[in-house]
Amino acid sequence: MYDGIVQDLIDEFGRLPGIGPKSAQRITFHILQTPSFDVSRLSLLLGDLRERVRFCEICGNVSEQDRCSICRDSRRDTALICVVEDAKDVSSIERTREFRGLYHVLGGAISPIAGVGPDDLRITQLMQRLADGTVQEVILATNPNLEGEATATYLSRLLHTLEIRVTRLASGLPVGGDLEYADEVTLGRAFEGRRAV
Amino acid sequence: MYDGIVQDLIDEFGRLPGIGPKSAQRITFHILQTPSFDVSRLSLLLGDLRERVRFCEICGNVSEQDRCSICRDSRRDTALICVVEDAKDVSSIERTREFRGLYHVLGGAISPIAGVGPDDLRITQLMQRLADGTVQEVILATNPNLEGEATATYLSRLLHTLEIRVTRLASGLPVGGDLEYADEVTLGRAFEGRRAV
Repeated sequence: MYDGIVQDLIDEFGRLPGIGPKSAQRITFHILQTPSFDVSRLSLLLGDLRERVRFCEICGNVSEQDRCSICRDSRRDTALICVVEDAKDVSSIERTREFRGLYHVLGGAISPIAGVGPDDLRITQLMQRLADGTVQEVILATNPNLEGEATATYLSRLLHTLEIRVTRLASGLPVGGDLEYADEVTLGRAFEGRRAV
Repeated sequence: MYDGIVQDLIDEFGRLPGIGPKSAQRITFHILQTPSFDVSRLSLLLGDLRERVRFCEICGNVSEQDRCSICRDSRRDTALICVVEDAKDVSSIERTREFRGLYHVLGGAISPIAGVGPDDLRITQLMQRLADGTVQEVILATNPNLEGEATATYLSRLLHTLEIRVTRLASGLPVGGDLEYADEVTLGRAFEGRRAV
């Protein structure tokens, strides 16, 4: 619809997840018409991103060094490992400020439909980390969906051969949610996991 | 939450319109983890955008040359000018394939609250285009909201001093819409503008 580079940039933004043609157009015109927006900074950061970011050699989290800031932090509890599917999940959990242990990023979840098996995940690396006996508990924090549950089940079976406590994040009603709108599975889990008060 | 460049890029994407922190994170990780995404192309286009894009010296539409592709197109009807607020509106109207005339981009709408008066819009340039008597009709296609209506009213008064037909886009029910969900103002307009069938 537009000439040259304007349309090219709209197309390129439209390839990003969650950005439709209208949003891509809005973003492109915003950049074009907002002198205060530092477009060279965005351009430079994009150009450098993949070069500068690597994955932590211990946990698989994103990092600009060989080891991520969490693995380098001596105040973290090395007896606790929280297993997550993705580096984004590390950030979500960090925001809660509830967890002071270390992480292990699997890089996905077991999914026969997507052709992802246990060998495609960083499970061997996890077993290596558990070998020296430092770790006392592994918290399985894969997503509460089909693939995440399958991965958690697989890992819990594997880990029960070791003398390590294996736990799973609680399922139940979201805080601030409404019982009326909870789906049956979530409500069922909330009953299962009920606690004495 | 993340180290260095990952967080920097998330922040930078978060400055764009319609992109919240979660979307910015999703986009950044998509770029990081999708080898097939051509990040250098996006980076280059962003760097070049403002340098390469200018605004058409006649109509104010975006263009990579002094005159935009519509003003250069000899098949367009030079007796018709459609006045729009923004270059994005040109593209929306072009998609309909209903209009074969030329455009005039005002660069906004009159808005006392935002401090935009008639002098901040490309109205003098419009009057200059109308001076030679080629243009027979001016279609006011500003947005059907408070600012757009005020701008259309202002322009229609100004243009009625010339011997040019001045029209306004029809307001009414959107096609495919539902009468039940139409707001009163739109429904009122639909009655006002009813046509014999």
